[in-house]
Amino acid sequence: MKLFLPALALSLLTVSCAKTPLTSKELVAQNNNEQAITAPKNIIMVIGDGMGPAYTSAYRYFSDNPDTKAVEQTVFDRHLTGSSSTYPAAVSGVVTDSAASATALATGVKSYNGAIGVDENKVVVETVLEWAKLQGKKTGVVVTSQINHATPASYLAHNESRRNYNEIADSYLDDGIKADLYLGGGQKFFIREDRNLVAEFKEKGFHYLDSYQGLATLPEGKPVLGLFADVGLPWALDDSNKHRLSAMTKAAVHHLSALQKHDNAADEGFFMLIEASQIDWAGHGNTISDAMAEMDDLAKTLEYLEHFVAHHPDTLVIVTADHSTGGFTVAANSKYEWNPENLRTMKHSVSAIAKLLTTNKIDGDYANNLFNFNLTEEEVALLIKTKTAPILNKNNNIYQDKKTSATELALLKQVKKLIDKRSNSGWTSGGHTAVDVPVFAFGKQSELFIGLQDNTDIAKKIFKLLGK
Amino acid sequence: MKLFLPALALSLLTVSCAKTPLTSKELVAQNNNEQAITAPKNIIMVIGDGMGPAYTSAYRYFSDNPDTKAVEQTVFDRHLTGSSSTYPAAVSGVVTDSAASATALATGVKSYNGAIGVDENKVVVETVLEWAKLQGKKTGVVVTSQINHATPASYLAHNESRRNYNEIADSYLDDGIKADLYLGGGQKFFIREDRNLVAEFKEKGFHYLDSYQGLATLPEGKPVLGLFADVGLPWALDDSNKHRLSAMTKAAVHHLSALQKHDNAADEGFFMLIEASQIDWAGHGNTISDAMAEMDDLAKTLEYLEHFVAHHPDTLVIVTADHSTGGFTVAANSKYEWNPENLRTMKHSVSAIAKLLTTNKIDGDYANNLFNFNLTEEEVALLIKTKTAPILNKNNNIYQDKKTSATELALLKQVKKLIDKRSNSGWTSGGHTAVDVPVFAFGKQSELFIGLQDNTDIAKKIFKLLGK
Repeated sequence: MKLFLPALALSLLTVSCAKTPLTSKELVAQNNNEQAITAPKNIIMVIGDGMGPAYTSAYRYFSDNPDTKAVEQTVFDRHLTGSSSTYPAAVSGVVTDSAASATALATGVKSYNGAIGVDENKVVVETVLEWAKLQGKKTGVVVTSQINHATPASYLAHNESRRNYNEIADSYLDDGIKADLYLGGGQKFFIREDRNLVAEFKEKGFHYLDSYQGLATLPEGKPVLGLFADVGLPWALDDSNKHRLSAMTKAAVHHLSALQKHDNAADEGFFMLIEASQIDWAGHGNTISDAMAEMDDLAKTLEYLEHFVAHHPDTLVIVTADHSTGGFTVAANSKYEWNPENLRTMKHSVSAIAKLLTTNKIDGDYANNLFNFNLTEEEVALLIKTKTAPILNKNNNIYQDKKTSATELALLKQVKKLIDKRSNSGWTSGGHTAVDVPVFAFGKQSELFIGLQDNTDIAKKIFKLLGK
Repeated sequence: MKLFLPALALSLLTVSCAKTPLTSKELVAQNNNEQAITAPKNIIMVIGDGMGPAYTSAYRYFSDNPDTKAVEQTVFDRHLTGSSSTYPAAVSGVVTDSAASATALATGVKSYNGAIGVDENKVVVETVLEWAKLQGKKTGVVVTSQINHATPASYLAHNESRRNYNEIADSYLDDGIKADLYLGGGQKFFIREDRNLVAEFKEKGFHYLDSYQGLATLPEGKPVLGLFADVGLPWALDDSNKHRLSAMTKAAVHHLSALQKHDNAADEGFFMLIEASQIDWAGHGNTISDAMAEMDDLAKTLEYLEHFVAHHPDTLVIVTADHSTGGFTVAANSKYEWNPENLRTMKHSVSAIAKLLTTNKIDGDYANNLFNFNLTEEEVALLIKTKTAPILNKNNNIYQDKKTSATELALLKQVKKLIDKRSNSGWTSGGHTAVDVPVFAFGKQSELFIGLQDNTDIAKKIFKLLGK
């Protein structure tokens, strides 16, 4: 197969291969010669849902070792190649939702907000995962949301609306099984009164598991369905394994590697989608401590993938976001500071803290232990006052779904305020923004992702690498 | 001179020059061979002050042609190479001011917020502009702030505080004249009761001008000082030439090109610093219409530089920001939209509009004409009400300096609110944030700026290209 090198890549050739720089015209001529590029065997697409540039910047300061003078590089810093624009089809303006953006990343086609693997006219468009499977590759999906949530669904299904969760889950079987491995949440959609999709997957030869412990002993040669929660997984901070995305990814990469060797004489490799789904959910909730813990799980996942690529250089890893969430800013209130210290030690999500403050008696010791840093007397007094006389605000973001009590909602708001004030974090929205998102790539052909690209370009490049 | 290629650049070599990919070890070995790189003759450093990723993203949608279905690429999109971290020396936390960041970009050394060309211990550090001059290059500075403001000062001076405006201006002569061309604002600092620096510059052979008209007839072979305003230039929207940065840049590039040919038998080229200073000021004031107009002037400047590089391929242009300002987000308030339509047609700055609303009778026709779009009856009524009973807010940002009336301040706030509501723009601060900023580069050796780099790395790369 043949591929064009991007202009910037070509300009590099002139530095290294030619003695004198080429003119623009010569560059174009060289481009037209169609530099041949060999495709990587394995392609791993990683999406940090909602992970705009403020999140990857903040994560550097969050994960910095305070005992050294230098600010340490993160795994993101090591592999930045450029940025991506994220705007949806014009009918939806310039601010995308996760469905339209994942559809763009999966198919190379812009669509309306809410679209799952269909174009503006609701016509089915092929995804890179589907095409990879047709090419004989093994395929897998590892997410921290339910596996039929907007992002994974856009690679696996075609539906006019992301909200049709049951229809999307049904299609995972009814439209033909497209992946050899699914790890994430979603029991509620797959084991229903009207239909037991887990039983049907088992009939098709799938191994099913519902706890992380089972990841250590996936049966060789069998496709896998792992659903570890009713809907999405618990927040990283609240989960039994705070690095559950990395644990799932490690198991998935091992299993798919073995599976493709087991089934394919031709050694065709695999295509995987990995999503750190809940960075976005923390963004919607405006909870920076939750977001940083989800980022940390993603960073550990990427560090494992660095290790895998070092040993399997025939692999390409692409990392990006579908959009940025919450209008998060790394500083606010005209103060020149952002203080991640307290965020580093927290051991519960903001919603877990609010729940516990609601049900238990609040005093200084209890609050200090719950937050895992020392609150001031004023902060403790404010929490107690909030609990006694909760003042409700209309803008309670995603938590409104969960039928929480007025007291818990008021405490949730107060806890968020406390953490924002201590860290000096800013937010402008419970929704998304249109800022370009970072793109990272490493492994074979990672240079194709240098510079500014549109989210649709990412799918187009992957399609080309997959020989389409 | 010799330079190391960055890792990503090296990985490109393996695609193009070698038939099979190199292992990481082979890459390191190849790196150690020290690929020779020839330096560009001219280097043009461009800083969009405060221009974080939300600004360049928003500008794409602002400058988009609404009559076509496609979203047109901007000049920024064409040349993105990566991002830059901006954190200052640890003593100042992770959120930089313009002085520390410009000092990092100019010298390669992290310092405290407020530092001008000195390190953490207030010791003088050499700047790339000073070094370029020592190498025989002509040097120039073109800015829309006063020419002794933090960013240009960090390339031209050494002072423990950016606030010492007069000392910094004095040093432009007393420490030896470092540039052959200065264009920007600042008459108030250069023509003072205690000292007339303009007269002194003239004595040293400089041609002085104080109006844009003079840019067309700069006397060949003479160094130039052009001061076009008392402090900073007027806002782009209010200036006699809305593209005054591009006009100044064009004149400066022509003049420096001619000057180096006139003076240098060796044809040493030039080093220029260009700053779109007032993107930052609009960010501090949280006025998105002003910011987009400043961005448009910068975009026109870069389009001219593209043209120059096409005809002078021995030139490198690097574009970045020193930090992001205002916590600007491209959407807010949980709404999935950002609407630049009204921003595109505005013909006055927000402060000019507030001033005119203060002094003139407000009615529908007057307001529609002033904003250059049709206000609703409610919007007009709100402006009238604000004027009759201004409610003051403590947080009036940079405008507090200007001793404006309570009525004008209240109207200013109301106009900002109106524009934010119509465009759905968000802000979290009157100060800066720590988000990484985009890096763009084109021309000779632009590939050196691929990937994530620290702001200090940009100076280090320029120093290397300049043979240090």
